[in-house]
Amino acid sequence: MEPVSAAVSAVLPAGGSGERLGGATPKQFCGLQGRPLVSYAVRAMERVSWISDIIVVVSPENIETMKSIIEKYGHKRVTVVKGGITRHRSIFNGLKVFAENQSSNRLLQKPEVVIIHDAVRPFVEEDILLKVVTAAKDHGAAGAIRPLVSTVIASGEDGCLDHSLERARYRASEMPQAFLFDIIYQAYQQCTDHDLDYGTECLHLALKYCKTNAKLVEGTADLWKVTYKRDLYAAESIIKDNLSQQICIITDLKEAVAQVGFLLHESLKSQVKVEAISISLSKNDSHLQNIFSGECYNFLCINDKEYATEEIQQLVDMLEKSNIPLLYPVVLILVHLSISENISFSIGLEELTKIKKFAREVKKKNILVYGLLIQCKDHFSLQETVNSAAALTMALIKDRNPELIGQLLVA
Amino acid sequence: MEPVSAAVSAVLPAGGSGERLGGATPKQFCGLQGRPLVSYAVRAMERVSWISDIIVVVSPENIETMKSIIEKYGHKRVTVVKGGITRHRSIFNGLKVFAENQSSNRLLQKPEVVIIHDAVRPFVEEDILLKVVTAAKDHGAAGAIRPLVSTVIASGEDGCLDHSLERARYRASEMPQAFLFDIIYQAYQQCTDHDLDYGTECLHLALKYCKTNAKLVEGTADLWKVTYKRDLYAAESIIKDNLSQQICIITDLKEAVAQVGFLLHESLKSQVKVEAISISLSKNDSHLQNIFSGECYNFLCINDKEYATEEIQQLVDMLEKSNIPLLYPVVLILVHLSISENISFSIGLEELTKIKKFAREVKKKNILVYGLLIQCKDHFSLQETVNSAAALTMALIKDRNPELIGQLLVA
Ligand SMILES: [Mg+2]
Ligand SMILES: [Mg+2]
Repeated sequence: MEPVSAAVSAVLPAGGSGERLGGATPKQFCGLQGRPLVSYAVRAMERVSWISDIIVVVSPENIETMKSIIEKYGHKRVTVVKGGITRHRSIFNGLKVFAENQSSNRLLQKPEVVIIHDAVRPFVEEDILLKVVTAAKDHGAAGAIRPLVSTVIASGEDGCLDHSLERARYRASEMPQAFLFDIIYQAYQQCTDHDLDYGTECLHLALKYCKTNAKLVEGTADLWKVTYKRDLYAAESIIKDNLSQQICIITDLKEAVAQVGFLLHESLKSQVKVEAISISLSKNDSHLQNIFSGECYNFLCINDKEYATEEIQQLVDMLEKSNIPLLYPVVLILVHLSISENISFSIGLEELTKIKKFAREVKKKNILVYGLLIQCKDHFSLQETVNSAAALTMALIKDRNPELIGQLLVA
Repeated sequence: MEPVSAAVSAVLPAGGSGERLGGATPKQFCGLQGRPLVSYAVRAMERVSWISDIIVVVSPENIETMKSIIEKYGHKRVTVVKGGITRHRSIFNGLKVFAENQSSNRLLQKPEVVIIHDAVRPFVEEDILLKVVTAAKDHGAAGAIRPLVSTVIASGEDGCLDHSLERARYRASEMPQAFLFDIIYQAYQQCTDHDLDYGTECLHLALKYCKTNAKLVEGTADLWKVTYKRDLYAAESIIKDNLSQQICIITDLKEAVAQVGFLLHESLKSQVKVEAISISLSKNDSHLQNIFSGECYNFLCINDKEYATEEIQQLVDMLEKSNIPLLYPVVLILVHLSISENISFSIGLEELTKIKKFAREVKKKNILVYGLLIQCKDHFSLQETVNSAAALTMALIKDRNPELIGQLLVA
């Protein structure tokens, strides 16, 4: 597919009250891995380089909340706009920012194509955005669709079945949608109060007022709208899944440590992408810097010293500077290696208290620290212990449980 | 609502191939907390006393799998029937069992009302079953409906929008549905091969062939159909949520232990329903037996002895006998209390290895054992440590992570 040649901006209605969730917090502000859902949708737009401006439309009482979210997570190219009392009125308000020179100091350029996307659909990919924008340039309007999951039926006055629709002939209209700006803006200017108050479908307005039959683009299942509490659960699990795809194993240059690093790598690589680095942490290693500028959210640092405080503090500082923990919690597993004939090895509570305190401090930087002890009598029993360590590592990075930070697990 | 006065049985089509999940395992056989989804739907029917027979219809290659599931989880009143190549053909096969004296040795009584429910909708409650059955007795047919989440649209030949449906006028047709047996059976007998091969909606057949306009009953959000991978994630989270609503704290009669039990109770009770029992475990306590016959899946056992092996083994035996772990994993947290001035208290690895080995054994009985150490210098710092223990307890029972069994967490 050709790169985008039009000026493109996006409007994200985020004004819903989230009644269906049954909770007090509107769903777009519910936290997933500690960060509000709306921030995920904003991020999904922001990382697409050819989207110029992102207008987030929120209800008046949430404007300050939204601004503080943008500040906290460092979102760029975002303008917060006051919403109306319905979805259509909110989208219209969002579009007006481009058409009118409003009170805002900054004048936003009117785009050729405008994307409309929901704040509660966090997983939209560049690919589908490109598809709807390209189709909108050609057809004036375009929207993502999905097959219907349930049969749709019409009920009569008496609450009984009137007729059922043939499922194959219909589709669910999802988001994102895209429009030539002039078409959708004209449609909103011409539509009635009844449309603005009771309508829900932008494609319908483009058809009704501009005779534009939107191109329908098959979307992926992950475009679904977070509506119920179960959808928040699902979104949280998907995010955790995405975050646990890659792990970086850091060892120093000592032979025993490097060997355990190698065995762990072998044991983990069938389940997760593994990067392994052997370095002296005290040097500012460029390979490590590369990892930190990538998409890795899990680090396993192997040591044979008892809690190598200085090196670990350095790693934490580098992670913090990298901005990786800004959007997602980072898991840092401190592996303590102890190969000794002395089976009566024991762990002092003072030591444990120290790790817990350290973990609590570091959690403020959105880094989750766990301890993992690999202890065995000899090199013969090492493989089994390493396999157990790999299983515990996967459990920790998949769960990302903030309550378990600072605990020392034993492989 | 009146109790059910009709003879009622149920048919569960479970023949789907689960293509939409993108996995090899059909979704009805995917494990949730270790147990296949279909077993949850069967259990939901089985626990309703007024449902006589439960027919599960599976594709020929899964008949043995289904029979072993029924055996393993001790399901009663279930008959496994071979499905057809489509949903309608499978349901028809299920209905035939009541109408024809088939090869099966056992002759099932023809019910007045038959419930049809999907194997992939695990959370159906007695209340909605009662509503559709009652409505079916009055109207001949009835089905659960839900509001539409997305606008439904019709696409033209060119892949462009033809028209969109006014969302408020339509509903999603969900399950359960119920029918007077003679009506739905007659509909299936009369319908065409095209209906059997391409149709999906039972309510439609009742309308088309028996002129029966089904009564539509508003269902709850949890009736949704597990369709995509995200739905499995959601279902798993809902089950974990349901399992972590109640905890039983077991202490012996010693003062220090009972005091910590009391403090933990106080700290937990705002988050979870707590039952507290002070007993001598060696006696076969009837109160404990009562708990075991209830719906509690989490136990916290406080001791001041180092791993009171005998008492714990006794508790495990009682749990096993109670059948509680048959359907859901049970969490058993062994709290070791140590109040001592000696801050250099330490944990021996030999001891840790012992708990891990024990936990691995007990996991085979579907009991997840975790260790939790409450250690503090004096009674002044006890409250803070207890709060930390409560937070860890909640994390353990909410997560039910089988990889972390046998670990000793420190409060
Ligand atoms: Mg969808
Ligand atoms: Mg639904």
